[in-house]
Amino acid sequence: MLIKHGLNCGFGAKKNCIFMLASSAVLRRQQLVIRCLGVGGYSDHNTNTNQKIMQGIRFMSGASLEADAENVVRAITPTLDPNRHKGQAGKIAVIGGCREYTGAPYFAAISALKIGADLSHVFCTKDAASVIKSYSPELIVHPILEESYSVRDEDKSFISEMVLGEVDKWMERFDCLVVGPGLGRDPFLLDCVSKIIKHVRQFNVPIVIDGDGLFLITNCLDLVSGYPLAVLTPNINEYKRLVQKVLSCEVNDEDAHEQLLSLAKRIGGVTILRKGKSDLISDGETVESVSIYGSPRRCGGQGDILSGSVAVFLSWARHVITSENLSISSKNPTMLGCIAGSTLMRKAASFAFENKKRSTLTTDIIECLGRSLQDICPVP
Amino acid sequence: MLIKHGLNCGFGAKKNCIFMLASSAVLRRQQLVIRCLGVGGYSDHNTNTNQKIMQGIRFMSGASLEADAENVVRAITPTLDPNRHKGQAGKIAVIGGCREYTGAPYFAAISALKIGADLSHVFCTKDAASVIKSYSPELIVHPILEESYSVRDEDKSFISEMVLGEVDKWMERFDCLVVGPGLGRDPFLLDCVSKIIKHVRQFNVPIVIDGDGLFLITNCLDLVSGYPLAVLTPNINEYKRLVQKVLSCEVNDEDAHEQLLSLAKRIGGVTILRKGKSDLISDGETVESVSIYGSPRRCGGQGDILSGSVAVFLSWARHVITSENLSISSKNPTMLGCIAGSTLMRKAASFAFENKKRSTLTTDIIECLGRSLQDICPVP
Repeated sequence: MLIKHGLNCGFGAKKNCIFMLASSAVLRRQQLVIRCLGVGGYSDHNTNTNQKIMQGIRFMSGASLEADAENVVRAITPTLDPNRHKGQAGKIAVIGGCREYTGAPYFAAISALKIGADLSHVFCTKDAASVIKSYSPELIVHPILEESYSVRDEDKSFISEMVLGEVDKWMERFDCLVVGPGLGRDPFLLDCVSKIIKHVRQFNVPIVIDGDGLFLITNCLDLVSGYPLAVLTPNINEYKRLVQKVLSCEVNDEDAHEQLLSLAKRIGGVTILRKGKSDLISDGETVESVSIYGSPRRCGGQGDILSGSVAVFLSWARHVITSENLSISSKNPTMLGCIAGSTLMRKAASFAFENKKRSTLTTDIIECLGRSLQDICPVP
Repeated sequence: MLIKHGLNCGFGAKKNCIFMLASSAVLRRQQLVIRCLGVGGYSDHNTNTNQKIMQGIRFMSGASLEADAENVVRAITPTLDPNRHKGQAGKIAVIGGCREYTGAPYFAAISALKIGADLSHVFCTKDAASVIKSYSPELIVHPILEESYSVRDEDKSFISEMVLGEVDKWMERFDCLVVGPGLGRDPFLLDCVSKIIKHVRQFNVPIVIDGDGLFLITNCLDLVSGYPLAVLTPNINEYKRLVQKVLSCEVNDEDAHEQLLSLAKRIGGVTILRKGKSDLISDGETVESVSIYGSPRRCGGQGDILSGSVAVFLSWARHVITSENLSISSKNPTMLGCIAGSTLMRKAASFAFENKKRSTLTTDIIECLGRSLQDICPVP
């Protein structure tokens, strides 16, 4: 694991370092997580354990930390148990796919399956559905959304109700929703999706919001504000628009962690994964960073893999916390989902780049998801 | 690198050769480019450097030179920098794809991605869109063009405006446009595309014109005349029609370089890449030739790879020239794009042929683009 910035608390400086860390509530939570993740007790008597903990802690500018990324992946990935049945490893749905975009929802949905979800659905427009179905027989694709061009004004209210009715039949069954990959910006479609988000919140289903979903919620923050199960995954431009809208200022890279923390807090404790050279993640209480692995290739579609990946890990984290009653419950599952999703995506990208170099495409990265998870969290 | 024709100025004949070269403005530019490309200073004190330069210069019939092809590829290919974000390595759009043709625009667009562009769009008819989408989820396909059969006469003006409006939303964002692969010859569609070309010129977006796009511009030269960011990539028949139309004579292979030079000059300094056993390239001021590599297989679709390839390298060359302020700026980016595109395409074709022999298809060549670029310009 690379130490990217700042001060690494080596074992020699352990006691001072512990004092420094202990003064921060953020870091106390971090230490708790590291203990919970099974790295070991926090005792002076166990040198190896302390070294492990120290390796896992990187004190970055201000109050943020490089996440103990691989340990998070291991802690929340469920064991494969032959007694389990279909659906128990996760049912993910992607809301996206319109006349113009079909690749993005496919990438998000197929990534969820490749990581280990049992079922992956896509809710898209009729135009997009047959194309997305043709990419893979593995996906369940619902052609139910409509764009303005296919709906007369006088039918809009009725169609909107019908779409919502169709979606409602399914929503409660999903462990996580991804809203936005290839959604487009048609006003009627976005209006329907706004209503879907409002309904889904009532079922307490986590929502990962990416791409055009971020365009939607940036213009209507109430859709996610105060919903702790919402995750936003902005890229550089989407983040800029969010910061301008919410904090009424420009992006400040000098104080990136604090600004992200403020942003997440101001949207009522949603979790934000700011994509970049290092991925920064905050839920308004703590900031973590994932810098390991990665690829210098910036082909379109990688964000879609990430959104599908976060969705699966988020639902797994939630399951671990609620069903197994681990002390990990003190940690926010959306934070854990983001850390794990980012880690796996970056590792898969680095594997793909190793092989394909400049020619690396999103499908190449998807093909490396399984190998990456096996590498971090091997199934015998 | 093979020396195909003419006199190679060996080191022994260096001084005379330099005098001869210096008398030509064309060749002075060539020398400058070679210096700029980092081959080294042009000094008598440095024997190795001079040998390198001499190796790079082949004095062909009249005033044309075999391009120092691999060095051009290396000089304009951007380094992969983890600080960059999506889009910065190039956003390419292909205008083509109709009821009959879907493979050609796909080949052009996917080649752009495989070479290293970040985003690749296709603007085509509705009939073609779902098929092109289904070839690959990596492409963004806009089903916005219309053919005569689907438009009533009284709606044509309105539809034409709508198409133009849709395209205009996007055009400014692209680093290069490829017009023609699989465009077809429907009069209404070609009329829309003419209008698109006129708009795009206002944004100073480079345009590579191939296939049916050449049919269009041969009949309406004003569309590209005097636009230095236009590249025409004719095959033997398309070149013949251009020569007949513009120079009112037949193709003269004895004086191929001079004729190409005249042709490019007469169309107001557009760049023409004449495909053949050797690819000849001219912007009306200089002629260069790319003869290295290649394959004897002539399967349909290779021209589409070339057009996508030229588009990426052209946008990279433009970026290098404008942003890095290299003295390479004295070189025309369209010439550099053609040299690099031709080189990579020929190398990929030779790799594919090595493996598949008579059975080599366009998709096999596309699969070799990454390896070819890695071979010329390795990423560690």
